[in-house]
Amino acid sequence: MIMRLPEGVEWALHCSWLLAQARHGDALTARRLAEFYGLPEAYLAKLLKALVRAGLLSATSGPRGGFRLARPPGAITVADVVEAVEGPGALFRCTEIRQRGPVPLTGVASRKPCGIAEVMHRAERAWRKELAATTIADLVETSGVGAVTRVNSWLSALSSGAHEG
Amino acid sequence: MIMRLPEGVEWALHCSWLLAQARHGDALTARRLAEFYGLPEAYLAKLLKALVRAGLLSATSGPRGGFRLARPPGAITVADVVEAVEGPGALFRCTEIRQRGPVPLTGVASRKPCGIAEVMHRAERAWRKELAATTIADLVETSGVGAVTRVNSWLSALSSGAHEG
Repeated sequence: MIMRLPEGVEWALHCSWLLAQARHGDALTARRLAEFYGLPEAYLAKLLKALVRAGLLSATSGPRGGFRLARPPGAITVADVVEAVEGPGALFRCTEIRQRGPVPLTGVASRKPCGIAEVMHRAERAWRKELAATTIADLVETSGVGAVTRVNSWLSALSSGAHEG
Repeated sequence: MIMRLPEGVEWALHCSWLLAQARHGDALTARRLAEFYGLPEAYLAKLLKALVRAGLLSATSGPRGGFRLARPPGAITVADVVEAVEGPGALFRCTEIRQRGPVPLTGVASRKPCGIAEVMHRAERAWRKELAATTIADLVETSGVGAVTRVNSWLSALSSGAHEG
């Protein structure tokens, strides 16, 4: 019964972090992003499209096309990315089992929100609030030097390749 | 890709709430609990066993056997019940994709925790902290009068039935 966030959450956050470092507004293709993280390209492409639909990425076609952040990295929060991947629904879904069975809760009592659902939703608001407190720009800012260096060298090599092509 | 907590979380919280109201330390069987909430008995029985394994319920057999809270309701938090159902693992699982691909993060840099995982885990701590702030006793205390009345009348009817049997 163990529940985990879909792995797409991790992928989408890392790809957003990488796109935030692309220089001169360069686009990166799904193939390049998949290559960088060793991810399955087809599945990643679907995920990137979900981020486009959510207004976090923009997509362009053509030889220099690909994906870019649709907003400055300081205007995209971790919560935005998580919600784009897993949808706007709540983690906890109340199915109102208190209204079932031989002595169901009815009338006024059933219109009062269920205390159990209230606790679960309050916790979820605390979770989202934390996720909303960090932007993609913050993630780049707090990356170690090693991480940023390897990205820059890889992006530079890509650009050189593009110029040759 | 939408993730939700398993419905067992809702069931386990409601059953714990109901067991907290059993009088004279009466036990309730999986059949009775399933009946009260209109739930599938076999699946609920598995869930109740998970709560026993987690030390939240105790189970006895025999004609008056069944499930009881293993601790006072004020000593069982919503977080305890959620963890018993969904396991102790984190919602977000970091698979270290930053260590894959053509320029993987290695050495000292890879031993520094990933900033993305840190944000996700910080948010999860905020979620669990909220869940840990409410006990089953709190849930009973803040139940509406209607909810408590229907439970008491149902439990009384059960007891009468047991005396006749």
